Parts: sequence; structure tokens; C-alpha cells
Amino acid sequence: MSAPGLRPSSRAAVPPFAVMSILTRVAELRAAGRDVVALCAGEPSGGAPADVRAAMTTLMAGDVPLGYTGTFGIRPLREALAGHYRRWYGLDVDPDAVAVTTGSSGAFTLGFLAAFDAGDRVALARPGYPAYRNILTALGCEVVELDCGPEQRFQPDVEALAAAHARAPLAGLVLASPANPTGTMVGAEQLAALAGWCRAHGVRLVSDEIYHGITASGDVGSCARAVDPDALVVSSFSKFWGMTGWRLGWCLVPSDLRAAVDALAGNFALCAPVPAQHAALAAFTERSYAEAADAVQTFDAARAVLLDALPALRWGAVAPADGAFYVYAELGDALGRHPDSVAWCAALLESQGVALTPGADFDTVRGGSAVRVSLAAGPDAVAEAVRRILRFQS
Amino acid sequence: MSAPGLRPSSRAAVPPFAVMSILTRVAELRAAGRDVVALCAGEPSGGAPADVRAAMTTLMAGDVPLGYTGTFGIRPLREALAGHYRRWYGLDVDPDAVAVTTGSSGAFTLGFLAAFDAGDRVALARPGYPAYRNILTALGCEVVELDCGPEQRFQPDVEALAAAHARAPLAGLVLASPANPTGTMVGAEQLAALAGWCRAHGVRLVSDEIYHGITASGDVGSCARAVDPDALVVSSFSKFWGMTGWRLGWCLVPSDLRAAVDALAGNFALCAPVPAQHAALAAFTERSYAEAADAVQTFDAARAVLLDALPALRWGAVAPADGAFYVYAELGDALGRHPDSVAWCAALLESQGVALTPGADFDTVRGGSAVRVSLAAGPDAVAEAVRRILRFQS
Repeated sequence: MSAPGLRPSSRAAVPPFAVMSILTRVAELRAAGRDVVALCAGEPSGGAPADVRAAMTTLMAGDVPLGYTGTFGIRPLREALAGHYRRWYGLDVDPDAVAVTTGSSGAFTLGFLAAFDAGDRVALARPGYPAYRNILTALGCEVVELDCGPEQRFQPDVEALAAAHARAPLAGLVLASPANPTGTMVGAEQLAALAGWCRAHGVRLVSDEIYHGITASGDVGSCARAVDPDALVVSSFSKFWGMTGWRLGWCLVPSDLRAAVDALAGNFALCAPVPAQHAALAAFTERSYAEAADAVQTFDAARAVLLDALPALRWGAVAPADGAFYVYAELGDALGRHPDSVAWCAALLESQGVALTPGADFDTVRGGSAVRVSLAAGPDAVAEAVRRILRFQS
Repeated sequence: MSAPGLRPSSRAAVPPFAVMSILTRVAELRAAGRDVVALCAGEPSGGAPADVRAAMTTLMAGDVPLGYTGTFGIRPLREALAGHYRRWYGLDVDPDAVAVTTGSSGAFTLGFLAAFDAGDRVALARPGYPAYRNILTALGCEVVELDCGPEQRFQPDVEALAAAHARAPLAGLVLASPANPTGTMVGAEQLAALAGWCRAHGVRLVSDEIYHGITASGDVGSCARAVDPDALVVSSFSKFWGMTGWRLGWCLVPSDLRAAVDALAGNFALCAPVPAQHAALAAFTERSYAEAADAVQTFDAARAVLLDALPALRWGAVAPADGAFYVYAELGDALGRHPDSVAWCAALLESQGVALTPGADFDTVRGGSAVRVSLAAGPDAVAEAVRRILRFQS
């Protein structure tokens, strides 16, 4: 019992994720000796590039204390990131406009605080990554969910934006391409149209590009900075380079937000993890790019395994799996006697030891009959999961 | 020029720190070949313990990807931290009540969000660490500064708290002992009185214990958890263990806030840096404790050098330097013809190459004639700084 008068804040009332009980149950089943195929997490199976691990080892052998860095991170890493933007997009990015952050999470917290006040209306796609919604809500912003179904290719369009803006002015739009959970991408033309609409209406574009480079087409993705100098572009070392858990990301900070992000970072974060900042310099060697490209090929192979199995699985509509390492699908008739995909996923896990993520975590309105399959564990794991799901559904 | 209608948020208007221009100038002078004694940063000079660096090296040699951990961090580290509380305070702490965070900064962000709503009044000492004030303000809380001068030993007392609460109810109190910038500690009795008052009035105590173990007396400090199970206790590997920049801290989460901190952490942070979590297990070896204790002795030696020099320096009142690695002093007559300590520090840096932090960064009301001297660079650096300051003042 707490002392009288003490209680959690009302803004801490973040909705729980269904995947959390799945993850807990996966750990229990594994501890009990069950062989579980876990396709529920967004963690690439390869880990950090060898050059990055070697750089960290060298760093640890040195006797030099690391201390804090500037709020935007070490200059050589910001220069290397500018080089990465030249390599991938042919874009000239000022290293002083690159802020190295504590994962993309850190970039979203700082970026949302810098760009939006409490009460501001910020639009985003539903289905979508739930942390956008939950961070914005906890920071007092009003989240405006744009219903993005198969008709919209699961991405916002100008029509939906304009309609939301007409109801009450928007302050921002969060865009993710390739998206989580769908993997669906926004093409260069659609991105230009969305960015143009945002610029014309004083709406800040926040572009989550964390899955860039992980695409089925080989096209790395379209960078919002190319069409909107005022866009806040967020990315990370966690996905393409497999440095999940290192908590190292970055954002391209538009010039009008630079002082704000700098001041907020100095108070909320001080700086991004410093050993990781130094080690990440080695993410830009040719060997590291090649290792990351190999990982992308395993995601491609895993995606092909799942897409090939769709006729046999007899699931419903599947979102265009353009990139990232997810496939988002309606279960359709495969839902069977289960009331929703949360129950279906729980039953699948118990009977066959396959863990998927229920769609409700990404879409509280339409997600009840959908699942997200992560391809990050590779083609063999996905093939084994398909065999078990077919057994489960038979 | 940004597109019309775009602007930074009003909550991003965080006041700039005077120390930032000092730090920039230090870098410029050093780049120009000047020998600068920098006593302006809170970075221990020793770096991470050898066992921690060795653990990180072992980790990098492994082929296992790290992935994310649970929101509260890996269980072995939470168990090791519980052991640390037994060792230092004789306290039994449930490992499930320990949340490993991205530095103490991460703990403050999550803790403040979990405990306080926008509009809540939160009290803290002036002078104090400016990030408390700035994070709380950016999160919409009302900061109530308690004027803590020499009469109050630079720490809040029940009288000041009661007076602030009488004007309008408080929701929280942030306490820091040893404090930054003063190094002054709150004794066990005063801590019990403050905690008792907080509990009786439904006020959440947030106790920053990041400088515990770095004290002149050898007493590690009093843990708020011993007197208040509802206190949010914050600490870090950055100071005692010298792991500055690793961005690894923790908090003891009171049971009524556990679900809230868990939900917020899953969205704002995912988890603390994972390589560092594993490496930090080696912070609890006897060798690491001994290394940290050696560093504390160098801070003690540096403190003695400065305190011995005070008569010669002819500064004004000095805050009781009980712990941490700071001495906070009024310049008094030594201010001379300079309008304030910001100007004094700038002139000292230009003429003698000694960098101190002006008091205005910690106390916007009374700090104009004070300076903070960091002892973290060790006794030789402090002795050299004293020689130069005496030359500057002569």
C-alpha cells in the first residue's frame, strides 16, 4: 500500500501490448524445454557487423575514458552519416544537422518535444507502430489516426490528410516507409505529394526511415529530406546493420528545430551511448555494408517462403510486403472458431509453439483479425512456422 | 527559411547553459595548442573499471546477437543491483523493483512521466542540477524552486516544503544528496524527516543518489528507500564506477509506479543499452569496487587541495563539500571588477586557461557570483588550476 495521495500519473496509462503476454509465454515455454519458433520480434538474427564488434574491442583495450560527447554526438560519426546519405540517396547533408540519438526512440522523444506542443494534433497511419501513438499521447499531443486499409495501400494519402486537417488543423504527420507492421512503402511520387501538402499547410513531416535498405526491390527507400528540408528524418543502426539493443539512432534535424533539439537533448539525454558511437564508425566499411546486404537477402528469402505459402495458408488480404521484415495479413477464414487474432495467436503458440504478433497491437479498430509475421529469424524458421501453422489450421 | 507555419514548440524553449560556451571555448583553445585545465565537467578521469571493459570485449567476441531486453533490463543485472543495495545499505530490494535505464536521464524522464501529470507542482532545491527543472518544465510540470542557501546547508528542509505546499499543494520533491553543484549531503535524520513529511502529505519523493559512494566521510550516503518505500530512487554507473557516457543507470521503482514505468519504458526507451547492461555485471566484482574506491580517494585528494587553498584564494562562502566531486563557492571580493561569475569565468579561461562552471547554471537567482569547481580531473589538475587562479586574481 502506498502512502495516501500517491498514484501514478494519468498520462502513464499507456495501453498494454498483446505481444508482451506472447513474449512472456515464449520464455516460459522455452524454459520448460519446448521448441518455439518466435516470429514476433523485430530483431534481425545476425547481430552487429564484425567490424563494429572489432572496433568496440579496440576501444575497450584503450585506457582512455570516454566521458560525454556533445549533445549531437561525435563529429566523425555525423560525418560518416552524411557520407551514408550521399551513398544511398545522393543527398548532401550537413553533419551539423545530424543528431546521433539513443536509438530511434530517443529521436522520436526529442523530435516530438521539439516540434509539437501539448494539445497539438499529429496524424499517423493506422495500422502503425504503437510507440508513436503512445509517446505522443504521454507528451500531451492529440493523436489523429488515419484509417489506412488496403484501399490506401496501408499508407496515408493527401485526401485523408486534408480531411483530418479540415476537421481541426494538424501540426504534424508521422510517416513510416517501409512501415511496421505492414512493410508497405510510400513511393517517391507519393512522398513528394505528402511532403508538398505538409509544407503548404504548415504541417511538420516526421519520417521514420528505420527500415530503409531492407526492401524487396533493392531500392533503399525514398528519403523525406530530398523533398522537404523541414522534415524530421529518423533512423537507426538497429535494423539494416542489425545493431538491435545498442540504442543508437539518429535524426536529420531541420534548421528551425536545431536549437530546440540541442537544448532538449542536453537535458533529456546528455548524449547517445558513447562506446557505441565510436564503434558505429565501423558500420560504414564496405565489409559492414556487405554483411548488412547479406542479412537483407535472408529477409528476402524468408519473405518469399511466406508469400509462396499463402495459397496453402488460405489467409485473407495481405499488405504489400515491399520491405522491412514483416508480413501483415488478415487471417480471414483461417481465424476459424477463435474470437480474434489475439486468441488465435495464443492457441497457435500453445499447440504448435509458433509465436506471431496479433494485429490489435498495431490497429485497435481493424486489427482484431490480423497478424504480423516477422521475417527476421530467417527462411528456415519461417518455413518451419508455416508447416506448424498448416498443422494448426488443419 | 522554413515553410510558413512551422516553428519549434514552446516547450522546447529550454534556457541555454553558460557552461556550453565555456566548453566550446575550451575546445577552440585546445585546438589552437593552448594548455587548458578543464574543471568544468562532471566526468571522472579514470573511465570504466577494467573488469567491465574486459566483459565488453568478451561480449564482442561472441557470435550471439544481443537484441532487445525486457523494459527493466536483464535479470542478472537487476539481481546484482539488489546485491549492491544489501552491500552498501543493508537493504533488501526486490530485483523486480529495479529498472535499468538509459543513464539517470532515462530514469528521470520515465519517473517524472510516471509520477507527475502536466500541471503538477514539483519542488526542488535552488541551486541544483538544471536538468531536473528543464525536464519537468518540458513535460508541463510546474517547478517550485526552494531557495536553499547556506542557512539551509543548500538542501531543502521541512519548513520550506511546508511553506511551498501551503501556497498550493505539491505533487513531488526532487532531492539530491550529495548534490550537484554543492556536494552537500542530507543526513539520515534530515532525510527521514523530509520523507516522513512527503508521505504524510501525499508528495512523491524522487531521490537522486547518483553521487552515492563519492563522499569525504566514507559514509556512502543515505538511501531514501530505507525510509520511504514509495520513493523513486535514481542512480547510475556514471559517477562511482566512472562509466560516464555509457548511458547506464537505474531506478528503484515503488510498487504503485511499476506498471506505469514499464509501459512508458516500452514506448519511450524499449530498453537500456544492451551491450552495456551485460558488461556492467562486472562492475560488482571486488576489483571493480576497489578501482572505484581508488577514484574516490583521488577526488578526496583534489578536494583537500582546493579547500587548503581557500584562505589564499580569498573567496566567499563555500558550500559544505560533503561529497560528489564539486566545490561550490561564492567568489566574494575575488569577483573584482567583473560584473558576474559568467564574465569572471570567461576572463579566467582566456587569460589563464582554467575552465570553471559559473553558478548561474545552477541558480538563476543567487548564482551570479558563484562558481562550481569540478574535482574529477584529480589533485594535480586542481593544484595547477589554483596556481593559475591566484595569478589571475593577483
